[in-house]
Amino acid sequence: MRLGEGVEWTLHCCLTLGWLETDEPVSTAKLAATFDLPPAYLNKRLQTLVRAGVLSSTPGARGGFRLARPPEKITLMEIVAATEGAEYAFRCTEIRQKGAGAERPAHEFQRQCVITTAMRKAELAWRRELASQTLADMLAAAPVAAAERTRDWFDRVG
Amino acid sequence: MRLGEGVEWTLHCCLTLGWLETDEPVSTAKLAATFDLPPAYLNKRLQTLVRAGVLSSTPGARGGFRLARPPEKITLMEIVAATEGAEYAFRCTEIRQKGAGAERPAHEFQRQCVITTAMRKAELAWRRELASQTLADMLAAAPVAAAERTRDWFDRVG
Repeated sequence: MRLGEGVEWTLHCCLTLGWLETDEPVSTAKLAATFDLPPAYLNKRLQTLVRAGVLSSTPGARGGFRLARPPEKITLMEIVAATEGAEYAFRCTEIRQKGAGAERPAHEFQRQCVITTAMRKAELAWRRELASQTLADMLAAAPVAAAERTRDWFDRVG
Repeated sequence: MRLGEGVEWTLHCCLTLGWLETDEPVSTAKLAATFDLPPAYLNKRLQTLVRAGVLSSTPGARGGFRLARPPEKITLMEIVAATEGAEYAFRCTEIRQKGAGAERPAHEFQRQCVITTAMRKAELAWRRELASQTLADMLAAAPVAAAERTRDWFDRVG
Protein backbone atom coordinates (compact mmCIF):
# COMPACT_ATOMS: atom_id res chain seq x y z
CA MET A 1 0.00 0.00 0.00
CA ARG A 2 1.41 3.35 -0.93
CA LEU A 3 0.14 6.89 -0.86
CA GLY A 4 1.19 8.86 -3.92
CA GLU A 5 4.00 11.39 -3.71
CA GLY A 6 1.35 14.08 -4.29
CA VAL A 7 0.27 13.80 -0.67
CA GLU A 8 3.68 14.90 0.57
CA TRP A 9 3.63 17.75 -1.97
CA THR A 10 0.20 19.12 -1.12
CA LEU A 11 0.66 18.81 2.64
CA HIS A 12 3.94 20.74 2.42
CA CYS A 13 2.40 23.39 0.16
CA CYS A 14 -0.50 23.91 2.58
CA LEU A 15 1.93 24.16 5.49
CA THR A 16 3.97 26.70 3.51
CA LEU A 17 0.91 28.78 2.66
CA GLY A 18 -0.04 28.69 6.33
CA TRP A 19 3.43 29.91 7.35
CA LEU A 20 3.41 32.77 4.87
CA GLU A 21 0.27 34.21 6.45
CA THR A 22 -0.24 36.36 3.40
CA ASP A 23 -3.30 37.27 1.43
CA GLU A 24 -1.17 37.52 -1.69
CA PRO A 25 -1.58 34.45 -3.87
CA VAL A 26 1.59 32.38 -4.19
CA SER A 27 2.46 31.16 -7.69
CA THR A 28 2.93 27.52 -8.61
CA ALA A 29 6.42 28.43 -9.81
CA LYS A 30 7.40 29.63 -6.36
CA LEU A 31 5.83 26.70 -4.53
CA ALA A 32 7.52 24.31 -6.95
CA ALA A 33 10.89 26.03 -6.43
CA THR A 34 10.49 25.79 -2.65
CA PHE A 35 10.62 22.00 -2.86
CA ASP A 36 12.26 21.52 -6.26
CA LEU A 37 9.10 19.93 -7.69
CA PRO A 38 7.93 19.81 -11.33
CA PRO A 39 5.66 22.89 -11.67
CA ALA A 40 3.14 21.40 -14.12
CA TYR A 41 2.51 18.31 -11.98
CA LEU A 42 2.36 20.36 -8.81
CA ASN A 43 -0.14 22.71 -10.42
CA LYS A 44 -2.44 19.77 -11.19
CA ARG A 45 -2.31 18.71 -7.56
CA LEU A 46 -3.01 22.21 -6.30
CA GLN A 47 -5.99 22.49 -8.65
CA THR A 48 -7.52 19.42 -7.00
CA LEU A 49 -7.21 21.22 -3.66
CA VAL A 50 -9.03 24.20 -5.19
CA ARG A 51 -11.85 21.90 -6.32
CA ALA A 52 -12.00 20.50 -2.77
CA GLY A 53 -12.31 24.01 -1.32
CA VAL A 54 -9.00 23.80 0.56
CA LEU A 55 -7.20 26.37 -1.60
CA SER A 56 -8.46 29.25 -3.69
CA SER A 57 -6.73 30.25 -6.88
CA THR A 58 -6.29 33.57 -8.63
CA PRO A 59 -5.60 33.45 -12.35
CA GLY A 60 -3.18 35.69 -14.21
CA ALA A 61 0.49 36.66 -14.19
CA ARG A 62 0.40 37.68 -10.54
CA GLY A 63 -1.97 34.87 -9.65
CA GLY A 64 -1.50 31.74 -7.62
CA PHE A 65 -2.85 29.93 -4.60
CA ARG A 66 -3.79 30.74 -1.05
CA LEU A 67 -5.61 28.86 1.69
CA ALA A 68 -9.36 29.08 1.12
CA ARG A 69 -10.05 28.87 4.85
CA PRO A 70 -8.23 29.53 8.14
CA PRO A 71 -5.79 26.67 8.99
CA GLU A 72 -7.90 25.58 11.95
CA LYS A 73 -10.74 24.86 9.50
CA ILE A 74 -8.67 22.63 7.21
CA THR A 75 -8.09 19.02 8.26
CA LEU A 76 -5.35 16.71 7.04
CA MET A 77 -8.09 14.35 5.90
CA GLU A 78 -9.40 16.96 3.47
CA ILE A 79 -5.96 17.53 1.98
CA VAL A 80 -5.21 13.81 1.73
CA ALA A 81 -8.64 12.92 0.31
CA ALA A 82 -8.49 15.74 -2.23
CA THR A 83 -5.05 14.59 -3.38
CA GLU A 84 -5.43 10.84 -3.22
CA GLY A 85 -9.14 10.33 -3.79
CA ALA A 86 -11.75 9.28 -1.26
CA GLU A 87 -11.99 5.60 -2.22
CA TYR A 88 -11.25 2.95 0.36
CA ALA A 89 -7.79 1.40 0.10
CA PHE A 90 -9.31 -2.04 0.51
CA ARG A 91 -11.45 -2.77 -2.55
CA CYS A 92 -13.63 -5.80 -2.13
CA THR A 93 -14.05 -7.61 -5.45
CA GLU A 94 -16.53 -10.09 -3.96
CA ILE A 95 -14.42 -13.18 -4.61
CA ARG A 96 -16.74 -14.92 -2.13
CA GLN A 97 -19.33 -14.94 -4.94
CA LYS A 98 -16.97 -16.68 -7.38
CA GLY A 99 -15.87 -20.31 -7.49
CA ALA A 100 -17.79 -22.12 -4.73
CA GLY A 101 -20.00 -19.06 -4.28
CA ALA A 102 -21.04 -18.90 -7.94
CA GLU A 103 -23.52 -21.74 -7.44
CA ARG A 104 -25.27 -19.92 -4.57
CA PRO A 105 -28.25 -17.57 -4.93
CA ALA A 106 -27.41 -13.85 -4.85
CA HIS A 107 -29.48 -13.14 -1.73
CA GLU A 108 -26.99 -15.11 0.35
CA PHE A 109 -24.45 -12.36 -0.26
CA GLN A 110 -26.56 -9.35 0.60
CA ARG A 111 -24.85 -8.86 3.93
CA GLN A 112 -21.47 -7.18 3.68
CA CYS A 113 -18.59 -9.62 3.92
CA VAL A 114 -16.97 -9.68 7.40
CA ILE A 115 -13.61 -9.02 5.77
CA THR A 116 -14.83 -5.80 4.17
CA THR A 117 -16.43 -4.74 7.46
CA ALA A 118 -13.18 -5.32 9.36
CA MET A 119 -11.00 -3.57 6.76
CA ARG A 120 -13.37 -0.59 6.59
CA LYS A 121 -13.32 -0.28 10.36
CA ALA A 122 -9.54 0.08 10.26
CA GLU A 123 -9.72 2.64 7.47
CA LEU A 124 -12.25 4.65 9.42
CA ALA A 125 -9.79 4.75 12.33
CA TRP A 126 -7.18 6.15 9.89
CA ARG A 127 -9.60 8.69 8.50
CA ARG A 128 -10.78 9.73 11.94
CA GLU A 129 -7.22 10.35 13.02
CA LEU A 130 -6.49 12.49 9.94
CA ALA A 131 -9.78 14.35 10.36
CA SER A 132 -8.88 15.17 13.96
CA GLN A 133 -5.69 16.96 12.92
CA THR A 134 -5.93 20.41 11.39
CA LEU A 135 -3.43 22.41 9.42
CA ALA A 136 -3.33 24.75 12.44
CA ASP A 137 -2.19 21.80 14.61
CA MET A 138 0.64 21.11 12.18
CA LEU A 139 1.66 24.76 12.04
CA ALA A 140 1.75 24.79 15.85
CA ALA A 141 3.74 21.53 16.03
CA ALA A 142 6.41 22.59 13.53
CA PRO A 143 9.60 24.28 14.78
CA VAL A 144 9.37 28.09 14.77
CA ALA A 145 12.66 28.14 12.85
CA ALA A 146 11.09 26.25 9.96
CA ALA A 147 8.38 28.89 9.60
CA GLU A 148 10.98 31.67 9.75
CA ARG A 149 13.20 29.99 7.16
CA THR A 150 10.22 29.69 4.82
CA ARG A 151 9.19 33.33 5.25
CA ASP A 152 12.81 34.50 4.78
CA TRP A 153 13.19 32.47 1.63
CA PHE A 154 9.96 33.80 0.12
CA ASP A 155 11.01 37.36 1.01
CA ARG A 156 14.29 36.83 -0.78
CA VAL A 157 12.95 35.17 -3.92
CA GLY A 158 10.25 37.86 -4.06
CA MET B 1 -4.14 4.56 -2.13
CA ARG B 2 -4.96 0.99 -2.81
CA LEU B 3 -4.34 -2.31 -1.09
CA GLY B 4 -3.45 -5.08 -3.52
CA GLU B 5 -6.01 -7.72 -4.44
CA GLY B 6 -3.82 -10.22 -2.58
CA VAL B 7 -5.18 -8.93 0.72
CA GLU B 8 -8.70 -10.00 -0.16
CA TRP B 9 -7.35 -13.37 -1.31
CA THR B 10 -5.30 -14.15 1.77
CA LEU B 11 -7.95 -12.95 4.22
CA HIS B 12 -10.56 -15.16 2.54
CA CYS B 13 -8.21 -18.14 2.47
CA CYS B 14 -7.46 -17.77 6.19
CA LEU B 15 -11.18 -17.50 6.92
CA THR B 16 -11.80 -20.62 4.85
CA LEU B 17 -9.05 -22.57 6.62
CA GLY B 18 -10.57 -21.47 9.94
CA TRP B 19 -14.01 -22.69 8.87
CA LEU B 20 -12.74 -26.07 7.75
CA GLU B 21 -11.38 -26.77 11.23
CA THR B 22 -9.30 -29.56 9.81
CA ASP B 23 -5.76 -30.69 10.46
CA GLU B 24 -5.54 -31.92 6.89
CA PRO B 25 -3.60 -29.47 4.72
CA VAL B 26 -5.71 -27.84 2.00
CA SER B 27 -4.12 -27.62 -1.44
CA THR B 28 -3.60 -24.40 -3.35
CA ALA B 29 -5.68 -25.88 -6.16
CA LYS B 30 -8.68 -26.27 -3.86
CA LEU B 31 -8.32 -22.84 -2.29
CA ALA B 32 -7.94 -21.30 -5.76
CA ALA B 33 -11.05 -23.12 -7.00
CA THR B 34 -13.03 -21.89 -3.98
CA PHE B 35 -12.66 -18.32 -5.19
CA ASP B 36 -11.81 -18.87 -8.85
CA LEU B 37 -8.33 -17.42 -8.39
CA PRO B 38 -5.16 -18.11 -10.42
CA PRO B 39 -3.45 -20.96 -8.49
CA ALA B 40 0.16 -19.91 -9.16
CA TYR B 41 -0.38 -16.36 -7.96
CA LEU B 42 -2.39 -17.50 -4.98
CA ASN B 43 0.35 -19.95 -4.04
CA LYS B 44 2.89 -17.13 -3.96
CA ARG B 45 0.64 -15.18 -1.59
CA LEU B 46 0.11 -18.17 0.66
CA GLN B 47 3.86 -18.77 0.82
CA THR B 48 4.32 -15.26 2.20
CA LEU B 49 1.87 -16.17 4.97
CA VAL B 50 3.96 -19.26 5.69
CA ARG B 51 7.08 -17.09 6.01
CA ALA B 52 5.15 -14.82 8.38
CA GLY B 53 4.18 -17.79 10.54
CA VAL B 54 0.45 -17.41 9.87
CA LEU B 55 0.13 -20.60 7.80
CA SER B 56 2.14 -23.79 7.76
CA SER B 57 2.65 -25.72 4.56
CA THR B 58 3.08 -29.39 3.86
CA PRO B 59 4.84 -30.32 0.62
CA GLY B 60 3.89 -33.17 -1.67
CA ALA B 61 0.92 -34.42 -3.67
CA ARG B 62 -1.36 -34.46 -0.64
CA GLY B 63 0.20 -31.31 0.76
CA GLY B 64 -1.14 -27.82 1.18
CA PHE B 65 -1.77 -25.19 3.80
CA ARG B 66 -3.29 -24.98 7.24
CA LEU B 67 -3.36 -22.32 9.92
CA ALA B 68 -0.10 -22.33 11.86
CA ARG B 69 -1.83 -21.10 15.02
CA PRO B 70 -5.33 -21.09 16.51
CA PRO B 71 -7.51 -18.34 14.92
CA GLU B 72 -7.55 -16.33 18.16
CA LYS B 73 -3.77 -16.02 17.89
CA ILE B 74 -3.80 -14.62 14.34
CA THR B 75 -4.57 -10.94 13.86
CA LEU B 76 -5.76 -9.28 10.67
CA MET B 77 -2.71 -7.05 10.91
CA GLU B 78 -0.42 -10.06 10.56
CA ILE B 79 -2.25 -11.29 7.47
CA VAL B 80 -2.35 -7.83 5.88
CA ALA B 81 1.29 -7.03 6.71
CA ALA B 82 2.48 -10.41 5.43
CA THR B 83 0.61 -9.90 2.17
CA GLU B 84 1.13 -6.23 1.57
CA GLY B 85 4.42 -5.54 3.32
CA ALA B 86 5.02 -3.65 6.52
CA GLU B 87 6.13 -0.34 5.03
CA TYR B 88 4.20 2.81 5.81
CA ALA B 89 1.78 3.93 3.09
CA PHE B 90 3.03 7.49 3.45
CA ARG B 91 6.65 7.60 2.29
CA CYS B 92 8.36 10.83 3.18
CA THR B 93 10.91 11.76 0.52
CA GLU B 94 12.15 14.75 2.52
CA ILE B 95 11.18 17.36 -0.03
CA ARG B 96 11.62 19.89 2.79
CA GLN B 97 15.38 19.41 2.28
CA LYS B 98 15.19 20.25 -1.43
CA GLY B 99 14.71 23.63 -3.13
CA ALA B 100 14.70 26.23 -0.35
CA GLY B 101 15.87 23.60 2.13
CA ALA B 102 18.92 22.60 0.06
CA GLU B 103 20.81 25.68 1.24
CA ARG B 104 20.26 24.83 4.92
CA PRO B 105 22.58 22.73 7.08
CA ALA B 106 21.54 19.09 7.56
CA HIS B 107 21.21 19.38 11.34
CA GLU B 108 18.15 21.60 10.89
CA PHE B 109 16.29 18.56 9.57
CA GLN B 110 17.15 16.06 12.26
CA ARG B 111 13.72 16.30 13.83
CA GLN B 112 11.06 14.31 12.00
CA CYS B 113 8.87 16.47 9.79
CA VAL B 114 5.48 17.26 11.37
CA ILE B 115 3.79 15.92 8.26
CA THR B 116 5.45 12.52 8.64
CA THR B 117 4.57 12.49 12.34
CA ALA B 118 0.91 13.23 11.62
CA MET B 119 0.64 10.69 8.79
CA ARG B 120 2.34 7.98 10.87
CA LYS B 121 -0.05 8.65 13.74
CA ALA B 122 -2.98 7.93 11.43
CA GLU B 123 -1.36 4.77 10.10
CA LEU B 124 -0.74 3.57 13.63
CA ALA B 125 -4.48 3.98 14.31
CA TRP B 126 -5.14 1.79 11.24
CA ARG B 127 -2.61 -0.81 12.33
CA ARG B 128 -3.88 -0.81 15.90
CA GLU B 129 -7.40 -1.47 14.67
CA LEU B 130 -6.27 -4.37 12.46
CA ALA B 131 -4.13 -5.75 15.28
CA SER B 132 -7.12 -5.72 17.62
CA GLN B 133 -9.13 -7.99 15.33
CA THR B 134 -8.31 -11.68 15.21
CA LEU B 135 -9.24 -14.33 12.71
CA ALA B 136 -11.38 -15.83 15.50
CA ASP B 137 -13.34 -12.53 15.68
CA MET B 138 -14.01 -12.75 11.95
CA LEU B 139 -15.05 -16.39 12.15
CA ALA B 140 -17.48 -15.46 14.95
CA ALA B 141 -18.86 -12.45 13.04
CA ALA B 142 -19.52 -14.34 9.79
CA PRO B 143 -22.92 -15.94 9.20
CA VAL B 144 -23.09 -19.59 10.31
CA ALA B 145 -24.49 -20.42 6.86
CA ALA B 146 -21.30 -19.19 5.19
CA ALA B 147 -19.20 -21.57 7.27
CA GLU B 148 -21.57 -24.45 6.49
CA ARG B 149 -21.56 -23.69 2.76
CA THR B 150 -17.78 -23.73 2.78
CA ARG B 151 -17.56 -27.03 4.64
CA ASP B 152 -20.20 -28.61 2.36
CA TRP B 153 -18.38 -27.49 -0.74
CA PHE B 154 -15.04 -28.85 0.46
CA ASP B 155 -16.72 -32.16 1.39
CA ARG B 156 -18.15 -32.41 -2.11
CA VAL B 157 -15.03 -31.46 -4.05
CA GLY B 158 -13.08 -33.87 -1.83
